[in-house]
Amino acid sequence: MRTSRFPLFTSKDTPADADIVSHQLMVRAGLVKKLGAGLYTWQPLGLRVMRRVERIVREEMNRINGLEVLMPAVQPAELWEESGRWSLYGPELLRLRDRHERSFCIGPTHEEVITDYLRQELRSYRQLPVTFYQIQTKFRDEIRPRFGVMRAREFVMKDAYSFHIDQASLEATYQDMHAAYSRVFSRLGLRFRSVGADSGAIGGSVSEEFMVLADSGEDEIASCSHCDYAANTELAASRPPAVSVSDPVPAEERSTPGIHSVAEQCEMLDLPPSRILKSVVVMADENPAVLFVAGDDELNEVKAAHALGAEALRLAEPEEALAATGVPRGFIGPRDLPADLPQRVDYRAAGLTNFSSGAGRADWHWINLNWDRDMPLPPRADLRTAVAGEGCPRCDEGHLEIHRGIEVGHIFQLGTKYSEAMDARVLDEHGTPQPLIMGCYGIGVSRVVAAAIEQNHDDSGIIWPAPLAPFDVALVSIGADRSPAVAEAAATLYERLCEAGFDPLWDDRDARPGVKFADMELIGIPHRIVIGDRGLAAGTLEYRARDSADSEAIPIDDVTAVLQEKIGTGA
Amino acid sequence: MRTSRFPLFTSKDTPADADIVSHQLMVRAGLVKKLGAGLYTWQPLGLRVMRRVERIVREEMNRINGLEVLMPAVQPAELWEESGRWSLYGPELLRLRDRHERSFCIGPTHEEVITDYLRQELRSYRQLPVTFYQIQTKFRDEIRPRFGVMRAREFVMKDAYSFHIDQASLEATYQDMHAAYSRVFSRLGLRFRSVGADSGAIGGSVSEEFMVLADSGEDEIASCSHCDYAANTELAASRPPAVSVSDPVPAEERSTPGIHSVAEQCEMLDLPPSRILKSVVVMADENPAVLFVAGDDELNEVKAAHALGAEALRLAEPEEALAATGVPRGFIGPRDLPADLPQRVDYRAAGLTNFSSGAGRADWHWINLNWDRDMPLPPRADLRTAVAGEGCPRCDEGHLEIHRGIEVGHIFQLGTKYSEAMDARVLDEHGTPQPLIMGCYGIGVSRVVAAAIEQNHDDSGIIWPAPLAPFDVALVSIGADRSPAVAEAAATLYERLCEAGFDPLWDDRDARPGVKFADMELIGIPHRIVIGDRGLAAGTLEYRARDSADSEAIPIDDVTAVLQEKIGTGA
Repeated sequence: MRTSRFPLFTSKDTPADADIVSHQLMVRAGLVKKLGAGLYTWQPLGLRVMRRVERIVREEMNRINGLEVLMPAVQPAELWEESGRWSLYGPELLRLRDRHERSFCIGPTHEEVITDYLRQELRSYRQLPVTFYQIQTKFRDEIRPRFGVMRAREFVMKDAYSFHIDQASLEATYQDMHAAYSRVFSRLGLRFRSVGADSGAIGGSVSEEFMVLADSGEDEIASCSHCDYAANTELAASRPPAVSVSDPVPAEERSTPGIHSVAEQCEMLDLPPSRILKSVVVMADENPAVLFVAGDDELNEVKAAHALGAEALRLAEPEEALAATGVPRGFIGPRDLPADLPQRVDYRAAGLTNFSSGAGRADWHWINLNWDRDMPLPPRADLRTAVAGEGCPRCDEGHLEIHRGIEVGHIFQLGTKYSEAMDARVLDEHGTPQPLIMGCYGIGVSRVVAAAIEQNHDDSGIIWPAPLAPFDVALVSIGADRSPAVAEAAATLYERLCEAGFDPLWDDRDARPGVKFADMELIGIPHRIVIGDRGLAAGTLEYRARDSADSEAIPIDDVTAVLQEKIGTGA
Repeated sequence: MRTSRFPLFTSKDTPADADIVSHQLMVRAGLVKKLGAGLYTWQPLGLRVMRRVERIVREEMNRINGLEVLMPAVQPAELWEESGRWSLYGPELLRLRDRHERSFCIGPTHEEVITDYLRQELRSYRQLPVTFYQIQTKFRDEIRPRFGVMRAREFVMKDAYSFHIDQASLEATYQDMHAAYSRVFSRLGLRFRSVGADSGAIGGSVSEEFMVLADSGEDEIASCSHCDYAANTELAASRPPAVSVSDPVPAEERSTPGIHSVAEQCEMLDLPPSRILKSVVVMADENPAVLFVAGDDELNEVKAAHALGAEALRLAEPEEALAATGVPRGFIGPRDLPADLPQRVDYRAAGLTNFSSGAGRADWHWINLNWDRDMPLPPRADLRTAVAGEGCPRCDEGHLEIHRGIEVGHIFQLGTKYSEAMDARVLDEHGTPQPLIMGCYGIGVSRVVAAAIEQNHDDSGIIWPAPLAPFDVALVSIGADRSPAVAEAAATLYERLCEAGFDPLWDDRDARPGVKFADMELIGIPHRIVIGDRGLAAGTLEYRARDSADSEAIPIDDVTAVLQEKIGTGA
């Protein structure tokens, strides 16, 4: 393609509403153009990238026998009433009425539609398992759309749904899907992790998220340096550092006026944080409870909610903590708490000896407390947030690394949530109707493009991983308006590259070299060839990789061979 | 693909709401599944067909330097207010409000969005001409959706928009687009015509429709048997049959009590219809006028409106005709009409001699009237509907054939309708801002699938043109459950077909031969190979083309060679 026929629409201006790098670069490079809040037109350059994602996703879905369908974007309200989601879903579900005043929504997801479709088509367990998928524009009416296509209102998604007669079959397809997703993100050239996740409002029990690693990611992931263990830090376990154990000595009360923080407590009592027991009052489903963690650990609220069997959990306000314990904040401890107040202690904190804690009255702390001797050990649980460098909970050799990540995929074992609600059954081998067991699996296709940029960019612009690049090589001709030799050589080279199977972008504009170089770097083409008068006289071109600062001269006749070597199987 | 992994979901039942063959067959063959009124899920088999249409459309758009984009489906009302269409468009525009109570529509077309996009990106005539297109799901809130995907509410469309600095450039791209559309429908293997058309509500002046020929089509097209002349019969011209000319004889009045129709008039006066002048009173923009056509011709109301310069035209009610002429219906003639009543005479009727017409009073007719001698000749115009068999108006050799057609494409020269309203300008070569001159071009991608079926089917089902077929060859194994030899031979053959580049559908179900044959005919795979015990013993297979009643035995070893010959370049 030539820029004279493929306008780039690049820009030097960073949009005022672009808070993250991918949003800034997607607009500046001319990948997308804003139409309204959370609504973007995919320009020719951006669409080429998104189509590359789509193609790889499609190939991997087909490889695991996924059947592609295309369901309507506009969905009748009746189906959402059947599943119960019409009332459960919030205002992010865009609802509308047609000319006959019937209610519809624009689907953010298609569980109801696919279940309605297959309850009509599937009759017998012999037709199972079966997996359907689509690549489609979806809509979610975000209250505050931002981050460009990362959190747009209209976006492109691959959603897949699998149907099974039993849990074993669901698990087998779930594993196939996990492997397919891993292949997708590997083939796209992205660094990623799959992590265990809460399944949240979609329902079902088992789920995993696929995260593209990027410093700007909203999620934090812990993963092992050695094995494939990975989890959202909300859920990650670890082998934490040991606490020092010493023989019990008598407990004493110490006056600690005005002490509130662990740091102040350490300094005043001359103790390391690992000798402190933190007591944290939380409201679990609006009921108070006290949780204990070591002074150098951080309470993990997601784990705490699980430990207490609570749907929702938050830290108690000071007055709530006072009401629950009778003790002012900073001086709560494990002794003399009300008998009906639920307590949990973290595994590591349960190993503390001769530790310090609040004394249960203002301005006093205990030192040298010991569990069992001074108060009973509460039920134990994993309550602490894992920290980088701690041992992997799965293997003996690795340690945890913490990365930030952007969620680009999510796989769920849904179970019978939708099939029970919508009466979608097939006959089992005994001729008995059974609800379909379902899985659902999503990839944010348009989001992947933004996530790839968050992971791969520099100050000059995007650095596309080869499989995502809109073109694989940029051909920049310099001074072709003045030199017929350059013009002719560039045209010949462009034809040769096309014939050799490359997908080159020839910048044939009459523009200054600096403008062309800046544009090619901004739009991130992985390889660049410069053809100009000086090199031509010597029979050479200048080659440079987008991710390298060094350029090299290569003989014109070698160019396709050199590129084939550099681009590898891409051509 | 194997049917064991690619469920067919065929059905014997014709849906009650399916009035046309394509709707019946698309549901019965399992191409689409109804979700709600005018909303259809494209099942795996149907989507394969639609993707084939998309691919060819995309290739031809790219060939003429069309740049693919993807615009949001949800469009802000403000843009439609700028163009004026927010108030002009009727209830078929699906309007909605987001959570912030801002108004949007789901786009049935994207003139506003593309104009808004390019008024921001285009600065200079040097960037022109440029053409953008997208393939996208669109929505039109039809009051009575019907005919399946032929008139669905949600549908897939290719819409393209071109931008120009002058009319000559628009016309050049319009011709390129015309050629591209012709290649698309040719490559799809469809019989079609492009015809001149009224451009209707979208605006602009010049437009042409592309019609797939099918007996069930809603439109009637006249086209030449020899040259490429074609037009909607509303507009078609022709060289009509000559009228007999004789030397004038004296006019006479004849008593014709109770005569109303031309047929009665012919019989009573013993004249052929080509000696009768029909006088038709019409209301042109609610003003009366009288039009004259020959007795064997039919008044064409679209042509009549053009002739009178009227926006709307209808036949006058009897009392309106009486009020306008003072003569009861059936007896109106060209003599003694009110001087201020507009009159037009069809070119052919202007050539009549010694003709009969109403005498201007009840129960009397003239015979042997002659123009000029008995009354002045009114202004002449083309007022008659062209008839099959008449001479082509463009070439000397052909005659008109009348076909019915289904509109699948429409190309428009829009001019500056949107760019003026939305202030979309670029600088011309003198540095003066000029409104962009636009063209717009649509193909009903999902509709093409239905139109192809209307054109190509028989009592057993669909007969896909090869380029549209979801699979190119059906492989039916018979008795594989009883005969390991058949099972093995079928598996080997399937592999060979795949390796040879075919896209076979192997019906490997344990079903009766009749069921398999019926399904393969219903879904319309162009070529069928049957492998069974009897043939296998002789080393042969049975081959049959979907559009043929005859089958032939071919040696197993020759199968790929024979198929390559039959399928041609398709493989």
